[in-house]
Amino acid sequence: MSVSAVAADRSVCAPLPVLGRDVRVPLVTGGEVDYAALDYAASAPALQRVWDDVAAYAPYYGSVHRGAGYLSQLSTDLFENSRRTIEEFLGCGADDQVIFTRSTTDSLNLLAAVLPQDTRVFVFETEHHASLLPWEQRADVAVTYLNAPRTPQQAVDTLEKALAEREPYGPALVCVTGASNVTGELWPVRELAAAAHAHGARIVLDAAQLAPHHPVDLAELDVDWVAFSGHKLYAPFGAGVLAGRADWLQDAAPYLAGGGASRKVSRRTDGGVDVEWHTTAARHEAGSPNVIGAYAIASACRALSEAGFEGLVAREQALITRVREGLAEVPEVNVLSLFGEDAARVGVLSFVVEGWNSSHFAAALSAEYGIGVRDGLFCAHPLVRTLLGSEPQEPGECGAPDSAPGERSLNAIRVSFGAGTPDEHVERFLRAVKELVTDGARWNYRTEGGRCVPAV
Amino acid sequence: MSVSAVAADRSVCAPLPVLGRDVRVPLVTGGEVDYAALDYAASAPALQRVWDDVAAYAPYYGSVHRGAGYLSQLSTDLFENSRRTIEEFLGCGADDQVIFTRSTTDSLNLLAAVLPQDTRVFVFETEHHASLLPWEQRADVAVTYLNAPRTPQQAVDTLEKALAEREPYGPALVCVTGASNVTGELWPVRELAAAAHAHGARIVLDAAQLAPHHPVDLAELDVDWVAFSGHKLYAPFGAGVLAGRADWLQDAAPYLAGGGASRKVSRRTDGGVDVEWHTTAARHEAGSPNVIGAYAIASACRALSEAGFEGLVAREQALITRVREGLAEVPEVNVLSLFGEDAARVGVLSFVVEGWNSSHFAAALSAEYGIGVRDGLFCAHPLVRTLLGSEPQEPGECGAPDSAPGERSLNAIRVSFGAGTPDEHVERFLRAVKELVTDGARWNYRTEGGRCVPAV
Repeated sequence: MSVSAVAADRSVCAPLPVLGRDVRVPLVTGGEVDYAALDYAASAPALQRVWDDVAAYAPYYGSVHRGAGYLSQLSTDLFENSRRTIEEFLGCGADDQVIFTRSTTDSLNLLAAVLPQDTRVFVFETEHHASLLPWEQRADVAVTYLNAPRTPQQAVDTLEKALAEREPYGPALVCVTGASNVTGELWPVRELAAAAHAHGARIVLDAAQLAPHHPVDLAELDVDWVAFSGHKLYAPFGAGVLAGRADWLQDAAPYLAGGGASRKVSRRTDGGVDVEWHTTAARHEAGSPNVIGAYAIASACRALSEAGFEGLVAREQALITRVREGLAEVPEVNVLSLFGEDAARVGVLSFVVEGWNSSHFAAALSAEYGIGVRDGLFCAHPLVRTLLGSEPQEPGECGAPDSAPGERSLNAIRVSFGAGTPDEHVERFLRAVKELVTDGARWNYRTEGGRCVPAV
Repeated sequence: MSVSAVAADRSVCAPLPVLGRDVRVPLVTGGEVDYAALDYAASAPALQRVWDDVAAYAPYYGSVHRGAGYLSQLSTDLFENSRRTIEEFLGCGADDQVIFTRSTTDSLNLLAAVLPQDTRVFVFETEHHASLLPWEQRADVAVTYLNAPRTPQQAVDTLEKALAEREPYGPALVCVTGASNVTGELWPVRELAAAAHAHGARIVLDAAQLAPHHPVDLAELDVDWVAFSGHKLYAPFGAGVLAGRADWLQDAAPYLAGGGASRKVSRRTDGGVDVEWHTTAARHEAGSPNVIGAYAIASACRALSEAGFEGLVAREQALITRVREGLAEVPEVNVLSLFGEDAARVGVLSFVVEGWNSSHFAAALSAEYGIGVRDGLFCAHPLVRTLLGSEPQEPGECGAPDSAPGERSLNAIRVSFGAGTPDEHVERFLRAVKELVTDGARWNYRTEGGRCVPAV
């Protein structure tokens, strides 16, 4: 079924207006074309609505929590109301806190910092590095890396077994993605949460790739925390969120030490300094808050809620179907998948093209078609290597091509899209893939400074 | 000499255009007035030039370091060029790195995290909490808190003595502010740096309050690192900077663990995970960079350099003289000072008014005159208590009044200004102070939710 056919259905949204929708980019083959942003999984364009809200607020910007003036009071209210908006968006309960961080990575590092002593963390090797790596930074935290499951049920079974067998049977945390940043496939979050809780563990959801595409409700999913980034949620102003149970957060040392987190500081008679820290969200938000970043996220939450996730999901699912059907017509294209054809997914899909270096292919999509995708290992090296079947000693650097054009590719190409993607971008992408595979690139490319670029 | 008289001098800049310069705010006594932002030391308004640059870039926003598309390449170049601009602005050398953080607080917490094992830190009790508190978060780091000096020379002598007497004579770091966030007084940075280096210690400059007012050159000051925030430098988009010597940064564990910081991640045969971390600035910048925040700081650096610090400083010094002379005409006003009348200073000044609760006074300045200042202990509790002569057990919370209107004030009022401040704001402030002291407030105020607000 074509996207337009689905779009005729009233339940499907039109694309939401985003910044950059009118940006023209030059083609190496001559002329220019509308830029097709198909790298939403790395960073999504700002919703026009988010930008308009930020632009309307910017002249009223003032110091948050810190000033007596009108704009300071307004900015403080705006910041705290943004927190309330996000609490509602996430279905937070009375025992939850929303903490503003700078990104999903920062949120998960914060959670790692507040884990009780000797917590054991369980994480699948298939996670993004932001979910995979923060935990071992704590010397007292042991991590169990779980092998890649090939079905959602296998994920649940693997986790249950590992949790049951842990010794000692102490504090434990499961960290799992909602949607893979490589395959777009949904993970069985509710079932994993049930398994975690059945075994006395807690669970944090990495919703970096899920939140832009689906409603995320803490209570409904029964997860203890959720982490996500503004810049993937159409709000690229340097803020992210960690939301969830307050207890571990309140009991731990502040993430950053400084003003805002400290309630009272005084010299002791022995010359030292005593500090009384806040127990609210401020405890982990030292320094002047990024009010524009927080407000932008709240604006995005409002915009998505008001547009209606039902229609957004319906439209995105139609685009996913179109992309998958289109790529299936090209035998040289191999789509990477953990969970197979029938897996539920969001608009994120990675593939390799037989006979092509992925960096070369991605460079040609950009230079000859004005299409922005990503090539590489997507900050999920173990997963991509598992999916590609290549050896773990192979090189691979985030965002940089790992072999020269013409060599066998050791990385992949990722196409990703979302609420702002028009049909034309997807159609152009499918046409480009077919033409490149059939006719080859029309230009020559070379590696320069770690990038594959058109040769001049 | 009046500001206008000085302004007639060609070496004095006109105010730089800032966002919010046309914002009108309501007065509780009726009507409305241009908002007078005199809380620059907490957060400065964005320069119009910074906003224009951000707005022009926003449609071209793309994933940094991570994408093959045109806008990703453009955004990556913009981000790395912003780093270059800031390196030049700070006079960085070949052995220095510029690392993007979220704020000065974050920058100093990062530096605390990378200190060699068992470093001893020397810090005056007069510092902002962001400079005072990060160090003791490290269990192996001992901190020597130095008593408040009353002259710049005493600061140098105190530091020299403490450094010389340290036992063991191991790795040491001095952390000092360039300009006090309470008194605006300049600290003898070059002399303190010389003392530190003479005693085998390193020094980090907290330039949060200095960089918006004066050029900060690492080589000229001979400091090892400098930390500052975008939001005080007319670029309030959630980014800050730590710049300086790369060696300790390269040798330490990454500040955040995640994508971007990791070069290569692979499973070990024993089931664990091996990580190879970057040694460039990326090592401590895990997660998608805040490209808008970084670009905004670079834009502000360019704007300040192009406007010319000589003229900006001349104008600010004229404003400072006007404020100090004006306040000196009001006997009930006591200006807080560590280093006395003749100290060099930036446009930051704190005071108390005899017979007035500072929160009440600040609330009246806002509600009756449209003037935004700050009241409180300014996240520098030990310093303000020393200056006020009150006991350290007194309450005090950042940004919240600590006593009800009418009670004796235990905190102070801070007025601060910068490159965007027109003469009229300063003149209105001086008139307001005189009228409030002479005639009292025209409205009644009460404490509500920790704020002093007009009673309705």
